[in-house]
Amino acid sequence: MKTDLSEKFGVEYPIFGFTPSQHVAAAISRAGGMGVLGCVRFNEAEELDEVLEWMHENTDGKPFGVDVVMPAKIPTEGSKLDLDSMIPPEHRAFVERTLDDLGVPPLPDGGDRVNTGVLGWLHSVARSHVDVAMEHTRRYGQIKLIANALGSPPEDVIQTAHQNGVQVAALAGAKEHALSHVNAGVDIVIAQGYEGGGHTGEVTSMILWPELVDALGDRAPVLAAGGVGSGRQMAAAIALGAQGVWMGTYWLTAAEYDLGATGDGPSTVQQALLAATSRDTVRRRIYSGKPARLLKTKWTDAWDAAGAPEPLPMPLQNLLVGEAHARISLADDPGVVAMPAGQIVGRCNEIVPVEEMISGLVSEYSRAAARIAATLD
Amino acid sequence: MKTDLSEKFGVEYPIFGFTPSQHVAAAISRAGGMGVLGCVRFNEAEELDEVLEWMHENTDGKPFGVDVVMPAKIPTEGSKLDLDSMIPPEHRAFVERTLDDLGVPPLPDGGDRVNTGVLGWLHSVARSHVDVAMEHTRRYGQIKLIANALGSPPEDVIQTAHQNGVQVAALAGAKEHALSHVNAGVDIVIAQGYEGGGHTGEVTSMILWPELVDALGDRAPVLAAGGVGSGRQMAAAIALGAQGVWMGTYWLTAAEYDLGATGDGPSTVQQALLAATSRDTVRRRIYSGKPARLLKTKWTDAWDAAGAPEPLPMPLQNLLVGEAHARISLADDPGVVAMPAGQIVGRCNEIVPVEEMISGLVSEYSRAAARIAATLD
Repeated sequence: MKTDLSEKFGVEYPIFGFTPSQHVAAAISRAGGMGVLGCVRFNEAEELDEVLEWMHENTDGKPFGVDVVMPAKIPTEGSKLDLDSMIPPEHRAFVERTLDDLGVPPLPDGGDRVNTGVLGWLHSVARSHVDVAMEHTRRYGQIKLIANALGSPPEDVIQTAHQNGVQVAALAGAKEHALSHVNAGVDIVIAQGYEGGGHTGEVTSMILWPELVDALGDRAPVLAAGGVGSGRQMAAAIALGAQGVWMGTYWLTAAEYDLGATGDGPSTVQQALLAATSRDTVRRRIYSGKPARLLKTKWTDAWDAAGAPEPLPMPLQNLLVGEAHARISLADDPGVVAMPAGQIVGRCNEIVPVEEMISGLVSEYSRAAARIAATLD
Repeated sequence: MKTDLSEKFGVEYPIFGFTPSQHVAAAISRAGGMGVLGCVRFNEAEELDEVLEWMHENTDGKPFGVDVVMPAKIPTEGSKLDLDSMIPPEHRAFVERTLDDLGVPPLPDGGDRVNTGVLGWLHSVARSHVDVAMEHTRRYGQIKLIANALGSPPEDVIQTAHQNGVQVAALAGAKEHALSHVNAGVDIVIAQGYEGGGHTGEVTSMILWPELVDALGDRAPVLAAGGVGSGRQMAAAIALGAQGVWMGTYWLTAAEYDLGATGDGPSTVQQALLAATSRDTVRRRIYSGKPARLLKTKWTDAWDAAGAPEPLPMPLQNLLVGEAHARISLADDPGVVAMPAGQIVGRCNEIVPVEEMISGLVSEYSRAAARIAATLD
C-alpha cells in the first residue's frame, strides 16, 4: 500500500502514528509506518534529547517525526508562579474537592511531579523541542516530519525545518485553518474530525477530509485523522482523497505502550481504554482550555455536574489540572482517568504489538479495496 | 456500481434517497437509485394515497420506498387538544416572543396550516401511512421498502410488510439500537452518524458504520447514512462495509425539490442551504424533542440564548413549534429557517437535477475506486 506521500517519506505504508511513547513510535517506524513522537510531556529539552537518541538507536535508520504543541495564539509566557496567580481559588477548591470525592490520594512525594505535561504547552518550551529535534536531524537525518498540534508554527520554525529537509505538518479541524496553514508554509495538513481524540472541531471526518482535500487541491496533501483504527477506515481515508492516515488513540493499547504502566498487564489507563465503547468519550475544555475529546470517566462527569466551574482558557486550565492529572495517574483507578481519546477507542479491545497492528491494518485495507473493486464488476 | 442489496432491490445503484418531496423521490428511482418518500408531513391518509398514486405514475415501474416515523416508545395518543394542554404557557410565550423578535409574521389565514407536519409523529398516524403504503404495494408492487426513522416498527407492521414482499429498514445511531432492530425482525439497518441531518446519536459515521457492520455480521446489511453527498463518501461507505448509502440532506437542493417553493429560482430554504457551510448546523432537541441536527439559523440561535426554555419531550416539542415552523416557512427569510440538515450541507452549493446528481455520484465513485486500486499497484 502506497501513496505519493508514503513514497516521498520513503516509508512502506502511509500510516502516521502519533504517540507520546518512544517505544510505540519506534515500533511504528520499524514496522513500515511513520512513528511521530508527541513532545508535550517533556518539560526539559535534555529529556527529549535523550529520548530522541534512544529513538535513533531503535529505528534501524528508518524515518520518524516529532509532534510539538505550539498554539497559533501564543499563550502568556512567564514563570509558573506568574501563571499560577491567574487561577481563581474557586477553581482550585473545585479540583481539590473533586479529587477527594473520587478518592484520589495526594501525591506521595510532596508534589515534585506537579509540572508533568504542563510546560510543554508554553511556546518557549515547544520551541526548545523544535531546536532539539533539528539538532537531531542534522546529526542523524532521521527526523523527517515536524507536526504542530495547534495552529501553524511560526515562520522561522517552518524555514528552519525546510532547511533541514524536514516537512512541516499542522492539524486542522476546519477549512479556514487548513488554508491558513498552507499560506504560512505548512507542507501537510492533518485533517482531524470531531470524533478524534484530543483537540477537535465540530465537523466530522467524513465531511472534513474531502472538504480539506478539495480546498487545498495541489497545494498540500491531507492526512486523515480522527476515527481511524482499522484497514476499512484507512480505505475510507484514501477514498475520500487523503494521502494517508494519522492515528493516535489506536496506539494507546499497543503492547509497547508503557506510559503509566505499573507492572505486568495492561496499565490502569489501558484497562479504561479496553473497557470503553465508542460512546464513552466526551468533548470538553477541561483538559487544556480548548475543546478536546477525552475518555468519559468520573473525572469528566464531575466537570459536567451542576455547580462545576467553567474551564479556564489555555494554558491556565492545564496548569490548574496538571497536579490533578499526576495524582489521578498514580491512583490506579480505571474509573477515574484523565485521558484524551477518540471515538475509535471502541475498537481498542485488546493489547496487541505494533507490528501486528500494522500488518492487520494493511491486510484489512486490501480486503476493503477488493470489496470496492467488486462493486464495479 | 452494484452491491448485493442493490441487486436484491433490482436498482442500478445502491443509492437510497430519503426525501419528503415526491418529485425528488420519483426522480431518484427513475435515475437508477431508490427513492424513499418521507411521510411524516402527511396528516391525512388520503393525501398520502394521492401522492403515492402520483409516484406510481411517474416512476416507470421502478421500485421505491416510504419512510414513516413510528417511535419505539409510543408517544401519548390523544387529540391535539389533550396534548396541547400539556404544553407549559411559558414555552408558548417564548415561541411567540421569539417569532416577533425575528420579524416572522403571523399566519395569514388564521392558522389552518397549524397542523402541518405535526400529527405524522403520532403512532396512529404513522400506522395509517403504513396501511396506505401496503394497499399501494398490493396494487402496483412498486413499494419495496418501508423505513422507520425512530426505533423498530411494531411486530405486526413488520409481518405485514414481509407478507407484501416489502423489506423493513430502521435507523440506528448506536450498536444497541441496531441489534434490537434486527431482533425485532428488521431487514436492513440504516446507520446514521452524528453528522447526519435530523435525529442522530453522538457516534460519527466513520466509527458507527463499521461498528454496526461488525455487530450485525450476516444478520442484516447496513446502509450508510450521515455525511454522504459525493462519490468519495459513497466509496468510503462501501470501504467501511456498508451495502449502500442513505442520503437525505443532499437532495434538498435538487432542482426537483419543490416544497416551500414560492416561484422561480431557489426557495427560501434552498437559499439558506446553498449558503451554509459544514459548520452551520447544530444538534438540538428543539425540532422534535429528540436530538436532531438542524441548519443553524437565528431560530436555533434563539433557543441557544440565555433564558430560553428547555425543549419539551416528543411529541410535545413538535406540537409546540408546529405553528412556528409554518409561520417561518411562509416568512421567506433565509436567515430564519427551521430545517433538519446534516453537515453535508456544506457540499450543497448548487441547484442540480437529480439525474445529474446521481450520474455525478456514480462517476466520482469510480474515480475514488481507481484511486484506491492505484495504492496497491
